[in-house]
Formats: sequence, structure tokens, C-alpha cells
Amino acid sequence: MAWHVFIPDSLLEETDDPKIRTYKVGQVARACAIFGVEHIWIYRAGGRDGKFIKTVLEYMETPQYLRKRLFPLMPELRYVGVVPPLRTPHHKLKGKPKVGEIREGYAFRKGRKIYADIGLDELAIVEGNIEGRATFRVVSTRPLKVVPAKPVEYWGYRVHLSGKPLAKTLKKAHLDLAIATSRKGRDVRKVNLPPLEGEVGIAFGSPRKGVMELLGGEYEFDFVLNTIPNQKTKTVRTEEALLATLAIFNLIRRD
Amino acid sequence: MAWHVFIPDSLLEETDDPKIRTYKVGQVARACAIFGVEHIWIYRAGGRDGKFIKTVLEYMETPQYLRKRLFPLMPELRYVGVVPPLRTPHHKLKGKPKVGEIREGYAFRKGRKIYADIGLDELAIVEGNIEGRATFRVVSTRPLKVVPAKPVEYWGYRVHLSGKPLAKTLKKAHLDLAIATSRKGRDVRKVNLPPLEGEVGIAFGSPRKGVMELLGGEYEFDFVLNTIPNQKTKTVRTEEALLATLAIFNLIRRD
Repeated sequence: MAWHVFIPDSLLEETDDPKIRTYKVGQVARACAIFGVEHIWIYRAGGRDGKFIKTVLEYMETPQYLRKRLFPLMPELRYVGVVPPLRTPHHKLKGKPKVGEIREGYAFRKGRKIYADIGLDELAIVEGNIEGRATFRVVSTRPLKVVPAKPVEYWGYRVHLSGKPLAKTLKKAHLDLAIATSRKGRDVRKVNLPPLEGEVGIAFGSPRKGVMELLGGEYEFDFVLNTIPNQKTKTVRTEEALLATLAIFNLIRRD
Repeated sequence: MAWHVFIPDSLLEETDDPKIRTYKVGQVARACAIFGVEHIWIYRAGGRDGKFIKTVLEYMETPQYLRKRLFPLMPELRYVGVVPPLRTPHHKLKGKPKVGEIREGYAFRKGRKIYADIGLDELAIVEGNIEGRATFRVVSTRPLKVVPAKPVEYWGYRVHLSGKPLAKTLKKAHLDLAIATSRKGRDVRKVNLPPLEGEVGIAFGSPRKGVMELLGGEYEFDFVLNTIPNQKTKTVRTEEALLATLAIFNLIRRD
């Protein structure tokens, strides 16, 4: 199965400090990485931070050794030093290349050959016709050669800035199971969930509006769940609900 | 039942930025408040931030209207503006006093009477002999009179800076059930937990050392549990593990 999470572009509407804004997006990235979320959708909810959120999330998802190639200096990344690294399987450290190893890389044409930066001391020769960011398997170490490959471990998330409200964004994702989180939802302990299979989405509201209020009735969730029954604080923030909810669903998934 | 959580004084050892350090302690406070934790114990683990953590946690737990009375200006609180409020039941807003209402207050002697600031426009006359921070029930509105009372809702947490290593701190807490969280622990899904009753403690490790490594073998936990099976990141931070673990135990508790 694959996880999709839906967060609003108004995630940061109550946060002014630019360092804390960056750190908060970092919390979202960390929560998604810890629990192996494959897709993060940013939906339109009256906020102005969609691009900022996307940029920070994508920066964090990119292996350290590819960041300079893929991200020019930009104001959105000014405080990105405060966020902790993801340390997911696709953020490999430098080391001796090993045949069979899968590494994330960036491929580019140089003369008549294609080379890839896979985070090692030397560039790898690419066997195949691919450019840009891609996943590679090492097939030879002397000379260092790679072929395009499919990852076998958790390989980070993709970020989708939908530019559309929640209902339209959910439709775009073609989910097999759509879950909303809401304080007014049914207690997660009292619901019999089907097996989590295929594309499973979990939607979160914004700091000021719940999911159901943002939805406008144009989409039918399979479940509206309260994952934090008996909460003692008046509100639970999006990034808090995200981590708490993923922690619970991590125990429910079976694969 | 009552929750006790145990966090190390080295919680912030990987965080240099003073604003982010404050924000992180705020995450701990928020997680504990959302799930109604009654006691936060800070144990000695080679860190230097015990007092800082305690001060920020206590500041956040104090109702806004009592903060000026209870906290002098101090460097630890310089960045406390970045942390979100707890908005627990004991952080009451101003309003018209109601007979029967329970409010947190600060009582002090003035002449021959004792008055309490309970966050309203006027001071309340205290019937009873109490000074300092305390919980009161309004028994009359004209004149405004209060008596000492016991809270009936979740009323915040107490912070204990033990000054001792984890094992000694755990002993001090006189727990009925002691749980450690560890990546190397048993999968929480595969363990039959007893009913959560009495004083239930959950211990968390530090950024660089797990609970079992910090324990030194001087204490016997009832359970060592992995609450984040199949984590996809190499490490999970204390504040992340805290929120995730409390979210899961919130579904297990029965009262």
C-alpha cells in the first residue's frame, strides 16, 4: 500500500517567525518519513505558503549530496539548517561503491556520455538514456557504472502542490480509501477499518478550520475519524495530528 | 490513573538555536497536555538543560494571567513567544465570574485578608488559609469570593527536575506500571498490556542514547516496547517518540 497525506497551504497561518515556520514544515517531513508516507498533497485552503511548504519538504527529501545541484539559493531555504535530517534509507552516506547497491542520483549529459552524481567521490557512467534526478543501481565499480533501477526500500515522498481545494485534490489522488481526521469524527477505536490496501489517503484540516468545514461537501470520505479521543487541549495542530495519526495507523497496517 | 513521562536533561543536546530549543520544549509540553499527562520527570543524562526545560515547561503550564506574577524576567524565557499555548481546561479566559466555576489562582495576604488573582477583573476574597498558587472554586460573585478546591478536569502537569539518573528517578516516582520505549523493545502490537491503573510511567531515551543504555541495569521495567515498529528513519527524536507513544497509549487507556 501507499500513504497519501493531505495538508492545507494554511498550515503556517498562525506562525510568523520564519525559523519556526521552517521548523514546522520540518516536523511534517519528519513525521511522513518516520512512517513511510509516499505522497504529500498540499491543498488550497486560503493560505499563502503552498510553495514555501513544497520547497522545504522537497529540500528535506533530497539526499544531502544532491541538494546543491537541485536547489539554487532561495529565500525559502534560508533557515533550513534548523530542521533535523530525515535519515531515510535513500539518504546514503559516502562510502566505497558496492555492486548491487541502489543510490539516488542526478544524471546529466557530458559530451556523448551520461554521467550521474550518486554521492560518491567519482561520477558514475549511466548505462541507459535518462537525465535529471533518478534512482540507480551500481552494476560495476571499476569503472563505476550504474543503470536506472527501482528502489526496494522506503525511498522518500513526492510532494504535490495541487493548487485546488481539498475535494478536488482528493479526486486527483485516485484513492482506494479516503480517511478524514476530525475532532468530530468517530472514535477510531470503535470503527472496523477494512484492510489498508492500495492508495490510502488521510486528510488533515488547517489551524483554523476542520477538514469537514474545508471540504464543502463535494467529496465523500470512507471514514471520518477522531484519532485523538478525549483530547485535553482545545485544539490539536496539524503537525501534531499528523504525527499522532500516522503513529496509530502504523500499528493498523499489515504489510 | 495518572501518566508520568520521563525525559532526559539532554533532550536538546543536538539543538543549538535558542529559539528552536524553546520550541522543542514547547512540543513536549503540547504533547503532554493533549494527552493529559500529570507528571513530567526530567532525569539526569549528561545534559545541561534540566533547569531550562523545567522553566519553559512550567511557564507553559501556568495560565497566562498568572505568568507575570510567577515568572520574573529571565533569559530562559526569552523566546517563549514562539511556543503555542496549551489551551487546557485550566487556562481559563477572562469573563464574568460564575458561582461553582473552578479557576487556577494566586493567593496573597493583603492587610488582614487573603486575596486571589483568578484571572478576572477584580481580585477574589479567599475563604480559607492558603497562599501562593492554588486552585479555587467561586462561591459568590458579589462580593467575589473563592474557596480552595480540587480540579475536576485535566489541570495541567507538574514538572520534577530529579537531579538523578533515570533508574533513581523512576524509583522516586513509585510507579504501578513502568514502561520503557525503545527501538529494540517488543512490538507494542504483540504485547498484552495489563489495564492501565494507578501511576503509569513511560520513559524516553535521549537523542544519542536509548533508554536501556541510560538505565545501567538498576531498574526493572514491566515492559520495554517499540511503539514505532518498522520506522523508516534511522532515529526518532524524543519529542517525536513522546507524541507518537502517547497517541497510542491514549487509545489503550480505558478510564
